[in-house]
Amino acid sequence: MADQEALMETAHAMADAARAAILPHFRRGGLGTISKEVDSYDPVTVADRAAEAAMRAVLAEQRPDDAILGEEEGTQEGTSGLTWVLDPIDGTRGFISGTPTWGVLIALCDASGPIYAIIDQPYIGERFEGGFGRALVAGPLGEAALGVEPAATLAEATLFTTFPEVGSLAERRAFDAVRDRVQLTRYGCDCYAYAMLAAGQIDLVIEAGLQSYDIAAPVALIQAAGGVITNWEGGPVHGGGRVIAASSSALHAEAMALVKGALNV
Amino acid sequence: MADQEALMETAHAMADAARAAILPHFRRGGLGTISKEVDSYDPVTVADRAAEAAMRAVLAEQRPDDAILGEEEGTQEGTSGLTWVLDPIDGTRGFISGTPTWGVLIALCDASGPIYAIIDQPYIGERFEGGFGRALVAGPLGEAALGVEPAATLAEATLFTTFPEVGSLAERRAFDAVRDRVQLTRYGCDCYAYAMLAAGQIDLVIEAGLQSYDIAAPVALIQAAGGVITNWEGGPVHGGGRVIAASSSALHAEAMALVKGALNV
Repeated sequence: MADQEALMETAHAMADAARAAILPHFRRGGLGTISKEVDSYDPVTVADRAAEAAMRAVLAEQRPDDAILGEEEGTQEGTSGLTWVLDPIDGTRGFISGTPTWGVLIALCDASGPIYAIIDQPYIGERFEGGFGRALVAGPLGEAALGVEPAATLAEATLFTTFPEVGSLAERRAFDAVRDRVQLTRYGCDCYAYAMLAAGQIDLVIEAGLQSYDIAAPVALIQAAGGVITNWEGGPVHGGGRVIAASSSALHAEAMALVKGALNV
Repeated sequence: MADQEALMETAHAMADAARAAILPHFRRGGLGTISKEVDSYDPVTVADRAAEAAMRAVLAEQRPDDAILGEEEGTQEGTSGLTWVLDPIDGTRGFISGTPTWGVLIALCDASGPIYAIIDQPYIGERFEGGFGRALVAGPLGEAALGVEPAATLAEATLFTTFPEVGSLAERRAFDAVRDRVQLTRYGCDCYAYAMLAAGQIDLVIEAGLQSYDIAAPVALIQAAGGVITNWEGGPVHGGGRVIAASSSALHAEAMALVKGALNV
């Protein structure tokens, strides 16, 4: 394992580079939005590509032997045993709408999965990081420790999701089984939901249809903040798929039982 | 009419006071959340009350003859013909979840309705204002003019709402009639949605079940930015009820026709 301090410095340099690449395009006209797929609405902006290129440039200089998996440019092989998993703008729907709940996702993975991550919100100037013994946010109010704060019961829990924008009908029904049992459900906050779970503000995030670059960073952040994050079967989720993230193992188990029950109907 | 510059200075002083009152409570444990109603989830925090008290203190000193209508403390009569309509934290669900899409709403009204307003997001340090010939935002990226930027067609429009959290089933169906025709729908952004409409980022906001303090400030901001905002019948909405706000009169008319059609089924 390379020096942890140096790896964290590289991650912050990448996040800084992404911020500089993205902000000139946020809330500006003529975003150059195009659709990757004709059938589903999946906006990708010039900013998305500029940010990934900027992060790859930092890695080319500082960590040329590490592998890279990025949303925009795909996979670059490495020899160090470490892989950087990058989503330059998670939450492109929020981005094009002007809301500040999208983020830059940077996850550092070894063979075991994500070990350190940054979720950065460039417009707010807010950076969440977790791993290597750290769990903290730096933003407009200064620096603060991150840590989950579980609700006492599922009935008192707050649930976030990107549904109804993602997921199949069966997955939506499984989500609804949990939604019907919690106190408050909020929609469409993308990666910011995981940051709020790590910050002790909410209790559950349930999503489906994820790629590894969507979820690798949240996995490291949630685990560093004391939360539980798995796929809907209770296994590792950093490769993508369907996720349940929770502020406690008890809430996680309850939510997973409800989801599995609904899927098996 | 009193001097416009002085009125705007008072409004900014109120927004500053609200920021100072609210921020110590944002993302802190032990918010003291209570429910106003037993049946529906309507969190009110200590911050809500402290912010309204702080704004009323500014008015007591600077504008003692103006009337006040506030969410927390109700109506105070005045003699000047001007009324300040205040919602100290619009979007309490977002506030308790830690997301930065809630806001402080300050609207100045005369007999005709809202004539000037501020929507302030204290955590981001972002202030939208409209009226008296102004339409601008000041925030992390500096100052910028506000102005709607209509999509060419409804099929290319972006729609925001607080549904499914508010509204009756019939109102939800009416909302869905528009949702089914637009390109992108996003949920749960409270007052921030109106700010994004004024900023040219989105095209439509459709909501129901509003109080005057929820909607008076958005009315002034949207009109100052060149948008159209009415109730579902096309009349004034600053008194509350059901709202359609749009980036153009054409999109407004299309959305209103769909909503009315669905209500009359």
